[in-house]
Amino acid sequence: MQRRTAFYEQKNIRLDKYNLKLNEALFHNANGYIGIRYDFEEGYEKGYEKGHFIPSQYINGFFEYAKMNQAERLYGLVEEKQIMLNVADTQPIRLFFDGEEFSMFSGAVLASRLRLDMEKGVTVRNVLWRSPRGKEFYISITRMASFYQLPLFTIDYEVLPLNFSGDVLIESSHNGNVFNYVDPSDPRMCNEAAQYLTSVGCEIKAGASYITSRTFKSGLEVCSCVKNVLFQDCQKQFIIDNNDAVCRFMTTARPGERIRFIKYAVFSDSIRHENCRDRAEAEMALARSVPLQELYEKQEAYLADYWNNCGIEIEGDDELNTSIRFSLYQLIQAVGKDQHGNVAPKGLSGDGYEGHFFWDSEMYIQPFFTATNPAISRKLIEYRYRTLDMARENAAILGHKAGALYPWRTIMGRECSGYFPSGSAQYHINGDIAYSIIAYYLATKDIEFIQEKGAEIVFETARLWMDVGNFHEGKFCINDVTGPDEYTCIVNNNYYTNVLAQYHLNWAVKFYSRLKTSDGFDRLVQKIGLSEEEIEGFSKAAENMYLPYDERLKINPQDDSFLQKKSWDIGEIPKSDFPLLLHYHPLHLYRHQICKQPDTVMAHFILDDAQSEETVLNSFNYYEKITTHDSSLSMCIFSIVAARLGMVDKAFEYFESTARLDLLDKNNNTDDGIHVANNGGNYMAIVYGFGGLRLKESGIYFAPVLPERWSGYSFKVTFENSRVLVRVREDECLFRLEIGRAQKIFVYGKEYLLEDSLCISRR
Amino acid sequence: MQRRTAFYEQKNIRLDKYNLKLNEALFHNANGYIGIRYDFEEGYEKGYEKGHFIPSQYINGFFEYAKMNQAERLYGLVEEKQIMLNVADTQPIRLFFDGEEFSMFSGAVLASRLRLDMEKGVTVRNVLWRSPRGKEFYISITRMASFYQLPLFTIDYEVLPLNFSGDVLIESSHNGNVFNYVDPSDPRMCNEAAQYLTSVGCEIKAGASYITSRTFKSGLEVCSCVKNVLFQDCQKQFIIDNNDAVCRFMTTARPGERIRFIKYAVFSDSIRHENCRDRAEAEMALARSVPLQELYEKQEAYLADYWNNCGIEIEGDDELNTSIRFSLYQLIQAVGKDQHGNVAPKGLSGDGYEGHFFWDSEMYIQPFFTATNPAISRKLIEYRYRTLDMARENAAILGHKAGALYPWRTIMGRECSGYFPSGSAQYHINGDIAYSIIAYYLATKDIEFIQEKGAEIVFETARLWMDVGNFHEGKFCINDVTGPDEYTCIVNNNYYTNVLAQYHLNWAVKFYSRLKTSDGFDRLVQKIGLSEEEIEGFSKAAENMYLPYDERLKINPQDDSFLQKKSWDIGEIPKSDFPLLLHYHPLHLYRHQICKQPDTVMAHFILDDAQSEETVLNSFNYYEKITTHDSSLSMCIFSIVAARLGMVDKAFEYFESTARLDLLDKNNNTDDGIHVANNGGNYMAIVYGFGGLRLKESGIYFAPVLPERWSGYSFKVTFENSRVLVRVREDECLFRLEIGRAQKIFVYGKEYLLEDSLCISRR
Repeated sequence: MQRRTAFYEQKNIRLDKYNLKLNEALFHNANGYIGIRYDFEEGYEKGYEKGHFIPSQYINGFFEYAKMNQAERLYGLVEEKQIMLNVADTQPIRLFFDGEEFSMFSGAVLASRLRLDMEKGVTVRNVLWRSPRGKEFYISITRMASFYQLPLFTIDYEVLPLNFSGDVLIESSHNGNVFNYVDPSDPRMCNEAAQYLTSVGCEIKAGASYITSRTFKSGLEVCSCVKNVLFQDCQKQFIIDNNDAVCRFMTTARPGERIRFIKYAVFSDSIRHENCRDRAEAEMALARSVPLQELYEKQEAYLADYWNNCGIEIEGDDELNTSIRFSLYQLIQAVGKDQHGNVAPKGLSGDGYEGHFFWDSEMYIQPFFTATNPAISRKLIEYRYRTLDMARENAAILGHKAGALYPWRTIMGRECSGYFPSGSAQYHINGDIAYSIIAYYLATKDIEFIQEKGAEIVFETARLWMDVGNFHEGKFCINDVTGPDEYTCIVNNNYYTNVLAQYHLNWAVKFYSRLKTSDGFDRLVQKIGLSEEEIEGFSKAAENMYLPYDERLKINPQDDSFLQKKSWDIGEIPKSDFPLLLHYHPLHLYRHQICKQPDTVMAHFILDDAQSEETVLNSFNYYEKITTHDSSLSMCIFSIVAARLGMVDKAFEYFESTARLDLLDKNNNTDDGIHVANNGGNYMAIVYGFGGLRLKESGIYFAPVLPERWSGYSFKVTFENSRVLVRVREDECLFRLEIGRAQKIFVYGKEYLLEDSLCISRR
Repeated sequence: MQRRTAFYEQKNIRLDKYNLKLNEALFHNANGYIGIRYDFEEGYEKGYEKGHFIPSQYINGFFEYAKMNQAERLYGLVEEKQIMLNVADTQPIRLFFDGEEFSMFSGAVLASRLRLDMEKGVTVRNVLWRSPRGKEFYISITRMASFYQLPLFTIDYEVLPLNFSGDVLIESSHNGNVFNYVDPSDPRMCNEAAQYLTSVGCEIKAGASYITSRTFKSGLEVCSCVKNVLFQDCQKQFIIDNNDAVCRFMTTARPGERIRFIKYAVFSDSIRHENCRDRAEAEMALARSVPLQELYEKQEAYLADYWNNCGIEIEGDDELNTSIRFSLYQLIQAVGKDQHGNVAPKGLSGDGYEGHFFWDSEMYIQPFFTATNPAISRKLIEYRYRTLDMARENAAILGHKAGALYPWRTIMGRECSGYFPSGSAQYHINGDIAYSIIAYYLATKDIEFIQEKGAEIVFETARLWMDVGNFHEGKFCINDVTGPDEYTCIVNNNYYTNVLAQYHLNWAVKFYSRLKTSDGFDRLVQKIGLSEEEIEGFSKAAENMYLPYDERLKINPQDDSFLQKKSWDIGEIPKSDFPLLLHYHPLHLYRHQICKQPDTVMAHFILDDAQSEETVLNSFNYYEKITTHDSSLSMCIFSIVAARLGMVDKAFEYFESTARLDLLDKNNNTDDGIHVANNGGNYMAIVYGFGGLRLKESGIYFAPVLPERWSGYSFKVTFENSRVLVRVREDECLFRLEIGRAQKIFVYGKEYLLEDSLCISRR
């Protein structure tokens, strides 16, 4: 029997619309290339209106352009965005037993279970069903988005007739007439009209259907191929009509004899392959070249390796372990595995935020991969490298004479922010990307990659600080930018931005001096016209960076004017007014000392040496009172900083409040898609928070604390090709080198050489 | 013969598209209720594409709602705007002489002249035309928008055949199928699709055509009635087809015998009249009840009175006098004469800025009327009073618990700003409106009107300062607002806003104490729930108002952070980059010390006692270097403040640069409509600038200076029912009481009693 933590399941599936739509996201299958929301193959109750469900499937990085109307067309405002598309639907399978159609909404569901198996990498639905006329069946449906063969999605359908013999009709569809979901009432959702794909071809070849579609504006093509396999004698019929291929099997059932039917679907796209139709054919051949069982085994092996690398375990709390595992499972489902994709806030589980990539990738998701799977972290950087030219263009649009400015939200690299004060004005995205590259370097010491790609990003984005900032009374100031907190926009000297820019500029100087003498660095210097003088400018700006500090409160103000804003007691705001952004005009929010999420506190986490512990403590206490946590990116950071400050109970409370965000649908919008950054934040709260992990130039740091409710916990970190298991108990911490050579580590500030294992008493 | 300054004319009308489109605005006919752009009645050259001309007619305050898409739908953003509509076209008149059609583009125009007669209040086109087959005619067309009967527009058409006898066909159209002009390339123009009116009725009654149309969303109706009168024997035919009424006259021409044809058009709307169809009939009857000549005489009498009230004369510069007269003529053409209309930046001469009303009304146009025609000034205040409830609603949308916030741009009273940082965030609109009411009071001492309407506005808008501002370190601060300069948005403690709020709050207190004991004031106090405590709060906030001041530069910084922004040498910006707003991203503009128009300098004009002359001088010098004058509201204010500071040459240069903005089409957009605020600014530059007029609580002030290029100038000011002529010469100023009782006046700071006339030597 599987361990309880290996799966998340619902017994006796609730058939109300709320739960079913939520399940579309919670049980979706994805592998970082494709994502398929979890829909009943046979469909839902007749009369459920369209829009109650979002039976979508996505491809990471596949997009169409859509017009974005600006109410006033100021220079440089974005008027065309990109949106992630819903591609051909390969899910539908209908079953008819002597004319009676299987449905969860007719007859009687005697028992049912929906399970997300995070070790096997599949979702399984089991149903014991009695038809209206009394036929009984045991149905088991297993779905997989393969980590081994990324374009592949399979539905493994088994029917065991219990008391029925007779004709069975299986009808499996492959439908290219798909629309994007629209919810005009929610500002966070796309509100464009909705059919973006036009058919290029629809054909049957060698028993498989191929649907190739093209976007109107971006000119991208996607091909999906579906092959249906029934393991018993049958009659087979194909019908193609208007971009919709239906395959029908007529067969015979006998009580106790299992009918097994497998639906293979592969997807390919013209971003990655010149001829996506041919590629789909090759992928189908590959998928069919081995028994499905072999693909299941490979899936399990991939995940075994994955779980082993993470190694997270909370001792004695199975339910929490399941939640954490669920979070980590979402991360590997969501993250792009090549330079053409990245991680959207909803991963590949829904088109909330239109599938755009934000700073979430670098600041909430990448820290996990950097610490456990640097090869994926590297891919995320390669995505940014691929779009560097567009970041240069974006900088020019915003009036900068040099450098690159990454877009606040994008799919293919161009800015998609409709409202720039809380979009393009978040210049910290440049620092965030540089920070993630530096972190990758600190974890791997992979200087070749820095030379090849990382340094160019770091230099070009560092240049932008020089163009955006200016010296004022001897200090380097950065004016008119927006920090992470979107409840205060277009401010001067946002502490988060300035301290991050300082770190960024310093590292640009370090990379320059480290790479200066290395082969091939000349080429980069020439390519981007980088001069020693500029590097000196970086140093000077970093050295004189203005970091706002309030003498009276002994905190870092969020920006120059934050502390002069009006107070607003969160306790007096009606519960129904949260999130505030849906109930208050931006000017009202800007005018108050109120935060959507950590800003200065976030800076205290990512650059925790920049201020004294006293300042960090004061800041934490100050901002805690005025933060609404209206963003799902918020609580995990408060948890981490509380842990750092020794407030373990508080850290645990924050962690508890956010760790089950999706499973409990706390924000009431998980149906739009799971919250990937929150999942990353849950990881960070344990490893960077309780575990105290920090990647610094001087080495790797741990400072584990133990929440009272836990008897212990463990996790693993990979750095410089070594993997270390960390096990924290009440009285001691164990560090064990599992893989690789001996490493220097810091625990509670003290340096150790980890050769085999170390047991350190907890202070 | 008329004086040169009585008219503006073009001889030998240039027939290129640029000039003809410009003339549509320069020679438009309006009276504050209706406005008709100047189009050739016979049309233009075949093949001129649609959109080259904008043959529109407008009604002040008549609007339709239009959807305004917000790229990101934040709470409270405006999603529906109002737009001024183009109503039925009553201009077209075609002439056929034995089948040859009159056109300026066929045959030969032997001579032509287009004249705007500002004494008679008409435009006249004279053409000596030879047809392709050699027929010669002298044609004279006189157009009038009646100031006496506001709904009336007339075209008085005379044809003198010189060598032709034969059949004449006159075809006069009245067309209800009209569209709004669209220029999607210009962010300052409406870019909505364009037909807003649907036909309700189209009929012929008693020889007149009636077209009644209704808007789709606002549900407003407009009726236009046209009656054609030919003063000789003729056959008459009416054709009505699809909302288009055509009236045809067939008559006979003989050489030397004048043919006279009059086209009467009246307009009425359902905002002002319950049944606008019936009202149009009544108006037509009224217009037809007297000979046209009598209407011409009334027009001339109205204007004689108008010119006599303004009394502006520059000695020895006819050309400049014509320009000034042109400006003043536009003001009386544009200004609304009832509480349902106001003044759009383009008046009724074009739909630039979609016909919205801005602060231009109070700060650039009303000062002229307050000083010369307070009854009109009062109407402008009544318009604001009528929309006070919507200003209360607007305040609530922006999160305010009390008070009223006037919209930045509107027609019927609701906010139409698409981009709030340079729209709704301009809270100074409240102060501007209060300022105009205070100025009206200072000029008239009309305390009854203040009690009846003015005070309610002043109190409700004053309340908003209390809700938006907050005390910080003992000073009252106003955060997150935008001042007049739209190149710097959402700032803290904008000097203009704060000093105006201070004045506003102080006057709210004064009005309260002056009205406290008067009859009926209780009713107002109860209606709006005003308490003594609140009034004390006003006092305290005003007393402690934070007014930014920089010790080093000895200037008032535009806002808290203005001086820490980057410098940008205007001299180094390519000429083609102006106006900057069309070439730079807002963030780029915000980040630099660069001004679109005066902001602090504007404050130094309107509240010139708030700072020492030294500070004003320093500010002037500082901001002058960084102001682009990208707004047509800019140079006149610099001229005024330069005059105040004794820099008369500089004042004159600014005046010279802006005084002929429309006539020389300096901004290359007068075809969109004349610049009414600039016209008001031209007046202000003379009277408030060179003449030094100020309305203060202590009395009325003059401090005339004389530009070197002028030998003298004069103007008239009406206050407290007295009218004073001011004549400035090199060595002396003459003040003569023309009407009313003796008044106290201040000249160069010294008090005089003006009983009959005073002659004061110029310092």
